[in-house]
Amino acid sequence: MALKKQNTHHKKKVALIGCGLIGQSWAVTFLSSGWSVSLFDPVEGIVETAKEKIMANLSNLQNHGLVEDCTVLKSLDRIHLSQSLSEAVKECTYIQESGPEDLDIKKEITHKIDKVTPVNIPIASSTSGIPTSAYAANIPGNYRCVVAHPINPPHLIPAVEIVPAPFTKETIKETVKEIILSIGKEPLELKKETPGFVVNRLQGALLKEAFNLIKNNISSAEDIDKAISHGLGLRWSFMGPFQTIHLNAPEGIKGYVERYGTMYSEMFQGSDASWSELVEDGLDAELLKLYSLDEYGKHEEQRNKKLIQLLIHKIQSEKSD
Amino acid sequence: MALKKQNTHHKKKVALIGCGLIGQSWAVTFLSSGWSVSLFDPVEGIVETAKEKIMANLSNLQNHGLVEDCTVLKSLDRIHLSQSLSEAVKECTYIQESGPEDLDIKKEITHKIDKVTPVNIPIASSTSGIPTSAYAANIPGNYRCVVAHPINPPHLIPAVEIVPAPFTKETIKETVKEIILSIGKEPLELKKETPGFVVNRLQGALLKEAFNLIKNNISSAEDIDKAISHGLGLRWSFMGPFQTIHLNAPEGIKGYVERYGTMYSEMFQGSDASWSELVEDGLDAELLKLYSLDEYGKHEEQRNKKLIQLLIHKIQSEKSD
Repeated sequence: MALKKQNTHHKKKVALIGCGLIGQSWAVTFLSSGWSVSLFDPVEGIVETAKEKIMANLSNLQNHGLVEDCTVLKSLDRIHLSQSLSEAVKECTYIQESGPEDLDIKKEITHKIDKVTPVNIPIASSTSGIPTSAYAANIPGNYRCVVAHPINPPHLIPAVEIVPAPFTKETIKETVKEIILSIGKEPLELKKETPGFVVNRLQGALLKEAFNLIKNNISSAEDIDKAISHGLGLRWSFMGPFQTIHLNAPEGIKGYVERYGTMYSEMFQGSDASWSELVEDGLDAELLKLYSLDEYGKHEEQRNKKLIQLLIHKIQSEKSD
Repeated sequence: MALKKQNTHHKKKVALIGCGLIGQSWAVTFLSSGWSVSLFDPVEGIVETAKEKIMANLSNLQNHGLVEDCTVLKSLDRIHLSQSLSEAVKECTYIQESGPEDLDIKKEITHKIDKVTPVNIPIASSTSGIPTSAYAANIPGNYRCVVAHPINPPHLIPAVEIVPAPFTKETIKETVKEIILSIGKEPLELKKETPGFVVNRLQGALLKEAFNLIKNNISSAEDIDKAISHGLGLRWSFMGPFQTIHLNAPEGIKGYVERYGTMYSEMFQGSDASWSELVEDGLDAELLKLYSLDEYGKHEEQRNKKLIQLLIHKIQSEKSD
């Protein structure tokens, strides 16, 4: 969670290929963590504009105390604008590509990066939906290709999805995970590829229901938005859906599903997962391991404390609008 | 959002029937807003315990500056412990029932409340899933019955769902909405009843997908939780799903759906709402009215400002753990 990172990576250098909003955000994140960054974009003039925006964003974070005081000054020496792909990847230990969401372009650019980058250097893509299997299957260095998908805006949202293809080497995936952790982000590791990965599937499921509520004339979009921003979203800003229900019954997720499973399954048609079965098949054990229920009252107390702090924060935030 | 409310309702009195966690939370909210509360629970000894917990919660809110300084002191005079239902409802302008989630008990208690409460006084239920149609259809005063469903923990989460039955009088629904607003809560108005109302349907849709991701061995529960608490939930703590996508494309929701509609529809089987059609049928117009796109850059700036403030808040919150 902490954006302030120590400069332990002052010898590390990342090549950022594609310098639109996402590439710029990656630059802000890597520079904040003491990395050097090398920027390349095939469109002329983009890297210069990107550099200005990156410095402005860093300056803003510095003013808010979210990065070290000297970050802006130090970063000036650590941004390198490259005129070619081969210049960009030189001496880099990591490549992050943030090109357009187009399969053919993705194939072409990854192939080009693979050609000029020394072996075993990971090549990650910021794609939000194209699996590595689809764009990298036929290139020689496919073993070092993987998705590292950030959430918009990437310099402010910690989660990054790591999605390996079946051909991605385990060591490459582990290296990327370590790099993502080292720059203060939260890596989410997918065991295998699936359309939309995890983040967009969760968002999509919520949106699908939101659209259905509109279709069935149950509520206005404004009130659906309020159900999240003045309701469920307050908890979700510091605890996920499983942790939420797990800590909502004295017996954890098992008790929750026993009590509410039928209610939820009756809500939707075509529900294809049996919650009770999953709980018994290991989900219960996993959650008990993650969040012990020995001190149930304490969990509740901590949650309420966090909610109070969040409310204070939101009130102050509204005052300063 | 503001919990600090002026004492404009010092002459108003609410009867809280059922004094478990939910009833206690309602008491905290009403007392914070200057109302008098009258507590009744059929189980002996409950109201006394409830009073202690209510005072402790009020004291906690007062220490955090979330209610006025004199709230605890003033509230001592405003809590009335009742020995019977008819004593509890005396001189009350509003009844909030928070009994067990059991249809037969709900029917019985609502019938009893209706018998002893003067005409036209609204009788609201905190039920999270039983529609008014199911428990109040056959009682004489069904016209003044309605659901007012809070989210756990109700004294900290602003959203309250107002769900009328077909037989609920429009003026009753409006009165309840005004009362909910007057105590600093955010009423969400449902146009009609539906299983799970809006909040639990949205939560259920997200949970359904979360369970599917587990079933299909895509990710661990921990990483799914992180996708929300370190990802989507940060935005959702201050903007709903429609606002989020609407402000994620320069053309608003229309552009977003044009760009990503296919991606989302390919993610799920049996999607039954056509997003594009809904956008054209008025959703676009509603959102444009709610959130003008005249100043697109400003929206983005405000969102990022809010995210920065939220990050600062979360860091401070973690430090104090």
